[in-house]
Parts: sequence; structure tokens; C-alpha cells
Amino acid sequence: MAGLIGLDWGTSSLRAYRLDAGTVAEVRARPWGIRQLPEGGFDAALAEVTAGWPALPRLACGMVGSRNGWCEVPYLELPTDAVTLGRALHVFVAGDGRALHLVPGLRNPQGPDVMRGEETQLFGAMARDPALAAHATVVLPGTHSKWASVRDGAIVDFSTAMTGELFALLRRHSILNAGGDEGAPAPDAFARGVLAARDSGAAGGLSRLFSARALMLDGMLAPASVPDYLSGLLLGEELRAQIASGRFRIDAPIQLIGDAALCARYREAAAHFDLSFAQPWVDVVADGLWQLAVAAGLVAEPLAMAPKEARSC
Amino acid sequence: MAGLIGLDWGTSSLRAYRLDAGTVAEVRARPWGIRQLPEGGFDAALAEVTAGWPALPRLACGMVGSRNGWCEVPYLELPTDAVTLGRALHVFVAGDGRALHLVPGLRNPQGPDVMRGEETQLFGAMARDPALAAHATVVLPGTHSKWASVRDGAIVDFSTAMTGELFALLRRHSILNAGGDEGAPAPDAFARGVLAARDSGAAGGLSRLFSARALMLDGMLAPASVPDYLSGLLLGEELRAQIASGRFRIDAPIQLIGDAALCARYREAAAHFDLSFAQPWVDVVADGLWQLAVAAGLVAEPLAMAPKEARSC
Repeated sequence: MAGLIGLDWGTSSLRAYRLDAGTVAEVRARPWGIRQLPEGGFDAALAEVTAGWPALPRLACGMVGSRNGWCEVPYLELPTDAVTLGRALHVFVAGDGRALHLVPGLRNPQGPDVMRGEETQLFGAMARDPALAAHATVVLPGTHSKWASVRDGAIVDFSTAMTGELFALLRRHSILNAGGDEGAPAPDAFARGVLAARDSGAAGGLSRLFSARALMLDGMLAPASVPDYLSGLLLGEELRAQIASGRFRIDAPIQLIGDAALCARYREAAAHFDLSFAQPWVDVVADGLWQLAVAAGLVAEPLAMAPKEARSC
Repeated sequence: MAGLIGLDWGTSSLRAYRLDAGTVAEVRARPWGIRQLPEGGFDAALAEVTAGWPALPRLACGMVGSRNGWCEVPYLELPTDAVTLGRALHVFVAGDGRALHLVPGLRNPQGPDVMRGEETQLFGAMARDPALAAHATVVLPGTHSKWASVRDGAIVDFSTAMTGELFALLRRHSILNAGGDEGAPAPDAFARGVLAARDSGAAGGLSRLFSARALMLDGMLAPASVPDYLSGLLLGEELRAQIASGRFRIDAPIQLIGDAALCARYREAAAHFDLSFAQPWVDVVADGLWQLAVAAGLVAEPLAMAPKEARSC
């Protein structure tokens, strides 16, 4: 049976998947992102996380292929489909004498912009849903939130919003850190922030950042609600700006991929924009690694997943 | 002769002016902002900074009147002219048994937004230039950059952009801190950032923040030039957003007030927007304190500064 070891190796974590014929047979998670490796570095991490697994082909995506990773892999330019990306896999020999394949990140000349790891999730999403692969917008919220446009099985455009990182910075270090303790969730404050961004007009939602302070001084916003207001303002601004860019399809349901609680916030914000979001997916990276491994010929595509060959029988 | 002790008392510094008939006779500066007072607190700071000066009326503006200041003074609502603000001065008895007058900050229901200290500078600017007082835009760049609209001697609108604070946060704590040492000034990178913001369209300039990283990874921006690019992007976004808001007059020269080097950056950025900025003023707070003291009747207006009375002679 065709098998693969897939690795999602990011800045702060490592997940290993043992795949059988495209299905996850076993998962292991370690806190060994590329900046916090165990003693022995990349080789030791790889040996431990795959210990006891058969000697299957190995494919990794994410920051492991960045300048500060194990082996730098140049970005591949947009547009790209699974076949093109599969052909561009980088291969090198790890310390154990066996090959490790790496997925290149993607570069969008528009922006310019870059991603590393999300491309694999996007191919996983397309494998799950052919209608999505035909033409859709996929959003991966997070520290650096990615909006991507997929069409005819290819990634054709994407844009990064630094929403998560800005929220953390403003919350921890700015004057908008009201000194209030984290209070109970304040959905009203969140919605108010979303609306402030939505209605900011051409000036843009971040021109309203200081309103978080003014509202608090006014007594119109409890100090403990400032983080929720700020979260709403930043998420709302991300939605406003990405819609206003005109680069992403919004007349079909948008697919969210990511942490369930964060995706729920995006759907809550989206309701104020008259956007339709499909039921989120938590994780599709294993599907993507499998797709790219098939495209690269690292694994034989099982019959059930290869309609063409199946048809030829 | 009419005299006044004027105090510009902010978060991180204290400046005291001894004024004779509206002219600065002596200035003293101390690092005693409201968050870093000397032993003995506000009273000791006031005693030391005015030591040896005659017992003149005392008027202070700035964060000294905020919640974390000496004595909280409620904000006054826009619009307001010098007479209205002069009548709203708050007076209390300091530890030395003598009165200290405080200038209220202003609140703009649009935003909402607040200022404390800048209102005094705005009245100083209007006193210096009657054409400006008739109808103009005044910009006070800084941590919290203020754009104000003045008309017929009144402050009628203002808006805060957190440009300086965002720059410091992104520079110190974000992924855009490339780890590069501060390099030589990179005017090209600054201009490139300004243009990226200007040409960002409806999505807004901050949607381009991540381009600082992508350009660096691309080798299209030297790590040491990232801060200048970021500075250009943030200043450019401030200009773009405030112009796009439609709230501020741009068909007459805009008056800058503030640090000379920072004002020079704003003028450089403004050139890409076809905006006209007048020669900046470094400091007009003493003029403003005098104007408000006159309006409040704290000092007698000298003949030279009172055209109406002069005319009646």
C-alpha cells in the first residue's frame, strides 16, 4: 500500500503524519518549531518524531524550508497548481542518509507577498472540495492571516494581513493596553469594533485605532472590553480591506481553515459584511502533503483517488 | 507689566515658560513628566521649576490634567474657540496655597477622539497667523499624530493617527524588525514605502505592511532599509487616510508643528501626494498658553496684542 510520512514543520511546532493511501494513520505533535529544536537539532527531531515508523518517503512543508530552517528552498512564483509545485519539490539527504523532500513556499509578485506552509493547506482544501478548487476564496486566519484565490486547481493570488501580530502588539505594548484585566468575553464590544472598521470609509479601519482609547476615557467602553473592541476593529479591518481590494471572490462561500475559536470570530465579523463563510476546517495540511507527494510521484496514487486510471480499467 | 507662568506638562517632560506681555522671557525644561516625577511629586516639581520666579498667575496644559495627572479636568466638546476654552479653565489650589489653572483637553464626538495639550498649541498657531485661524489644517506629528481643522478661530474637527506608536511597536517587537542594524538613512526606501501606501487603493496602506518582509526576503530591500520603508509606509498611510477622510482642507498650505526632523519627513512624504506644507513651527505652546490666559482674564492683554482696544484709543 502507498504510504508517506508528512511533516508540518513551522516556527513553533512540528506535526508528523503517517499516511496510508492518503488517509492519516497516525499523528504526532512536538513543540519543536524551527526556533526551538531539541538537542541534536533537526536530525534528532526528525528521528524522534518518526521513531518506529516504516521507511516511507518523507515530505515536509512550512518554515523548515525557510532561510532560518533546515534547508532554504527558493519560493515558487504564482500561479501554481499541484503538478507544478510537486515537480518543484526540493530534495536533500538528511543526517540519517535518507532523502527528505521539502515543499517550496510561494511568492506573489503582487504585493509582493510570500507564504510557506499555507500553500500545502490550500492544496489540501482543493483536494477535499472540487467546487472550491474550481474557483473560490480561502482564508487562513492567524498571526499572519492569508487570503488566497484558487481557480482551476491553481493558487492564483494571495495577500497577507498582519492581523494577529498587530493585535498581540497593541494588546501587550501599546497605550491601548488599558491595564484592565482580561474580562469576560464582550461580544458587544467586538461587534462595535467590527462596525467601526466596516464604516471607516476610504480612510480605513486602522485610522480608528485611537477610538479604543477615546471610548474608554469616555466611559463608553469598559477597560476590560478594550481587547474585544480591538479584536473586532482589526478583524473587521482585515475583512474590509480584503473585500475592498477586489482581488477575492465573495459571491461564493469563503472557506476558513484554522483554529476553531478564531474561525468563529471571523464568521461573527463576517455577518456584519454580508459575507458567507462555509463551515471551517481545522486542519487540511495532511491532505495537501499527500496531494503534492502524488503529484511528485513520491507515492503511487491509489485507485480510489485516481479516476483517470480507474476509468481505463 | 502683565506676566504669566505657563506650563507644558506632558507624560514624559515638563517645560515652564515665564511670559512677559506674551513674550517668553525664560524657559526651563525638566524630565518630570507625570509618570516620572521627582521626590515630592507634583508640588515639588512645580516649586523647583518655577523657583525664583515672581508670583504670577499659573496656567498648565497637557497630561497634567488627565486621569493619571495632578487633577483630572473633564474634556470640553468641539467646536471650541479660545474664549470658550478660556472660560472652562479648571482652577485648584496647589500645595503652596496658590492657584494653578489647568487647560481642559478636547473631545471630538466624531471618532470619538480626544486631545490634551495639542489644543493649546492650536490656539498658539492661530494667534501667530490670522490666515491660518480663518480656515486651515494643522498637523502635529508624533506618537499620536493629530490632524486638526481650524475655522474662524475655533477648533472644529480633529483626528488621531497612531503613526509614531505603531512604528515603534513594529520596529521593536514585530517580525518586521529584520534584525538589521540601523543603517545609513535610506531615502529611496522611505519614498518606496510612501508610494506603496499612496497607491494601496481602497484596501489601505496597512494592508501592505507585510510587503516590508516580502521585499526583504526577495532581496529587493536591504534589511537595514526596512525601518525607512516602514516609516514611509506608515507616514504615507497617515497622509492617505486623512486626505481620504475628506475632513481636512488640503487646498491651502497645511501647517506642521513639531520636531524639525520629523516634520521634514512629513514634508518629504507630502511631496508624493501633491500636498503643500508651510514651513514647520517647532513649538507654539507658550503662545497658546498666553492666548488662553488672556481669554480667561488671568492676565491683562497688552495694547500691542489687542487691536480692538488699540483702535478705540
